[in-house]
Amino acid sequence: MAETYTSHFGINNIPYGIARSSKRQTPQAVTRIGDEVIFLAELSKKGPFTAVSANLSSIFAEKTLNTFAAQAKTIHVQTRAAIQEVYKSGLHKECSEDIKDVTLLLPVQVGDFTDFSVSRDHVTNAPKALFGKPQLPHTFHNFPLGYAGRCSSIYVSPTSVTRPIGQYLENGKATFGASRALDYELEVGAIVGQPLAADVDVHAKDMDKHIFGLVLVNDWSSRDIQGCEMRDPLGPFKGKNFATSMSPWVVTLEALKAFETPAPAHEEPVVQFLDDPNSTSYNLTIEAEIVRNGTTTTVCKVGFAHMYWTFRQMFAHNAIGGCPLNTGDLLASGTVSGPTESELACLMELTMNGKEPKKLSDGSDLKYLEDGDTLRFTAIAGDSSAGVGFGECVGAIKPARRF
Amino acid sequence: MAETYTSHFGINNIPYGIARSSKRQTPQAVTRIGDEVIFLAELSKKGPFTAVSANLSSIFAEKTLNTFAAQAKTIHVQTRAAIQEVYKSGLHKECSEDIKDVTLLLPVQVGDFTDFSVSRDHVTNAPKALFGKPQLPHTFHNFPLGYAGRCSSIYVSPTSVTRPIGQYLENGKATFGASRALDYELEVGAIVGQPLAADVDVHAKDMDKHIFGLVLVNDWSSRDIQGCEMRDPLGPFKGKNFATSMSPWVVTLEALKAFETPAPAHEEPVVQFLDDPNSTSYNLTIEAEIVRNGTTTTVCKVGFAHMYWTFRQMFAHNAIGGCPLNTGDLLASGTVSGPTESELACLMELTMNGKEPKKLSDGSDLKYLEDGDTLRFTAIAGDSSAGVGFGECVGAIKPARRF
Repeated sequence: MAETYTSHFGINNIPYGIARSSKRQTPQAVTRIGDEVIFLAELSKKGPFTAVSANLSSIFAEKTLNTFAAQAKTIHVQTRAAIQEVYKSGLHKECSEDIKDVTLLLPVQVGDFTDFSVSRDHVTNAPKALFGKPQLPHTFHNFPLGYAGRCSSIYVSPTSVTRPIGQYLENGKATFGASRALDYELEVGAIVGQPLAADVDVHAKDMDKHIFGLVLVNDWSSRDIQGCEMRDPLGPFKGKNFATSMSPWVVTLEALKAFETPAPAHEEPVVQFLDDPNSTSYNLTIEAEIVRNGTTTTVCKVGFAHMYWTFRQMFAHNAIGGCPLNTGDLLASGTVSGPTESELACLMELTMNGKEPKKLSDGSDLKYLEDGDTLRFTAIAGDSSAGVGFGECVGAIKPARRF
Repeated sequence: MAETYTSHFGINNIPYGIARSSKRQTPQAVTRIGDEVIFLAELSKKGPFTAVSANLSSIFAEKTLNTFAAQAKTIHVQTRAAIQEVYKSGLHKECSEDIKDVTLLLPVQVGDFTDFSVSRDHVTNAPKALFGKPQLPHTFHNFPLGYAGRCSSIYVSPTSVTRPIGQYLENGKATFGASRALDYELEVGAIVGQPLAADVDVHAKDMDKHIFGLVLVNDWSSRDIQGCEMRDPLGPFKGKNFATSMSPWVVTLEALKAFETPAPAHEEPVVQFLDDPNSTSYNLTIEAEIVRNGTTTTVCKVGFAHMYWTFRQMFAHNAIGGCPLNTGDLLASGTVSGPTESELACLMELTMNGKEPKKLSDGSDLKYLEDGDTLRFTAIAGDSSAGVGFGECVGAIKPARRF
């Protein structure tokens, strides 16, 4: 039976998702406490919700969380308190089903997806793995580097990922076939809550009010297809746009408040709109496991708090100059690699682009992902006893289509 | 009074848009013949529409064209014929308003936007303007180069464009301020009609059925912000995501059928899924004008048909490997530059990144765009007497926000 991560969903979490079940066939908003999935349009008719100044029974009946995410933080705080109060009274039982009986869907409609690259280790290791020489990007200290990703191929976990076909280099020549260098990238994503318009002041220090919550993200990558196209300067495109997966539960900033921790000091001064005197990150521990031939190997265990730029700064850089952030937009951190081998959060780094294979627990060589491999990401906030976690973000590799 | 481009909208055009007016305040689908804007939810209740196998009076009442665009080509062909028949009978009068009395809105909801770069001249000129040396991208002959763009800042013409603030290089150091190198890019965009799923065969030759129609696109660009970030390999991001504008009328492939023309022969063989033995482009003439101090200067007049890769090939490359194309997605051609000076379709090329200023008709120097400048793009199919055109895509530059 699949792991349910019961311990991730204590009373202090109250994450949000979208689910349906055989009893409740219309997709709608849910939260989860322990193994109970609570349907919120029904729950919000209970007494304690009269204190919340929003029409929650209607908002929670929608098939994405977007309208709820767009509410003011005060509504999110009131709603969280009301859910906790009803749960303690036991009145949630008639609105609940066991986690095994529900299907979780994509929690938000994503209108734009930006993938950043804010781990100092990842950006330094990548050129080393690819070209033999570590090199910090020119602008790494000036702003969080990012690029626009693809929304149509964002899937909720669990998903299967079909090995992409595309063009890669073989003996210096572009060749068409199934990717031979399929990789994962272990990332954390932030979902936009209250939107930010084109014509407003933008300062990193003010951005928390636009962050609804965080999810785990797997930015699946085809290193050979990506390597072929990135010889030219327009960035990653086909190497990334076949699939991105996201964990189903949005863990809110309210739940993460207790796990705030100072972000690393900047190595160089930054411009005013990115400056954030009380710059905070989150104390999250993230793991990646590969399941091959029925055997599980932990391939990465890494903290999130060391990332050089914070989500507040990513939001501000994305928005500065007049780019609206809409509710439901996804901004992801990029690969959360740390300085040691056990903290390398993608195979390009861990196996030096396949040139230095590692051993998995089943004795097989790990270069890149093989058909049949399953990837599982998990994350937990603070001490694992706190009951605030992300559950899992899982994907299984299927063979390429015939072409 | 603004130019209405009456001659672009003959009986052979029948483009689609979304409009509202003081009489009809709910945004809904329209077409245009001459200066008459015809409200289609009402029109489709007329006799000739009984031959169309779709619930058009409901579909045309929606506030975007997405549901209509997603219909099969047979429905588009039947609808076009029915509109032309009702118009000839004069029965459209009660469903029509003058172009002056309506407000045009964004015609589709864009879920993903890919900007390609398929002009051989543009990709060769750009490195020459920036670094002094022309250089064809490594993969130019292998596939249409592209990157993901931003959807939240796509606006319908006419729009104002606020000069973006951001980070650019000054004396080799990243500096924050208003862009000093604001540019336009004259492009043609294609709108996805019938969606293409992740798990289907993809061949360029089959892609027309997924193309609803074409629009004019201005991919506004800040060359200094773009130049700063593109020293690193993730592609353009802040240099582009402040604004993209689109003409309001979608000119359908049915209307453009009469203007098909062979696409240029490929200089090198291409892989099978991109191969298209009857590769076709469209005979369009596109112009860009700058209005400064009340005086209009034509800065570019260029054909579209010479572009190296076709929309069919762009669609196939975007989709290959499992990337879904959803109805309403925008795929743009990149700057439509041709080989001569009068065919250079952005200022980076025309003024060699501002180093070789040109003179506008008012006697002023043209390096990059100045506050108060207005850009106007127009396009017409074939001989201008054919009555099939795009109208205009227009934008006016406003000063940067204070920061």
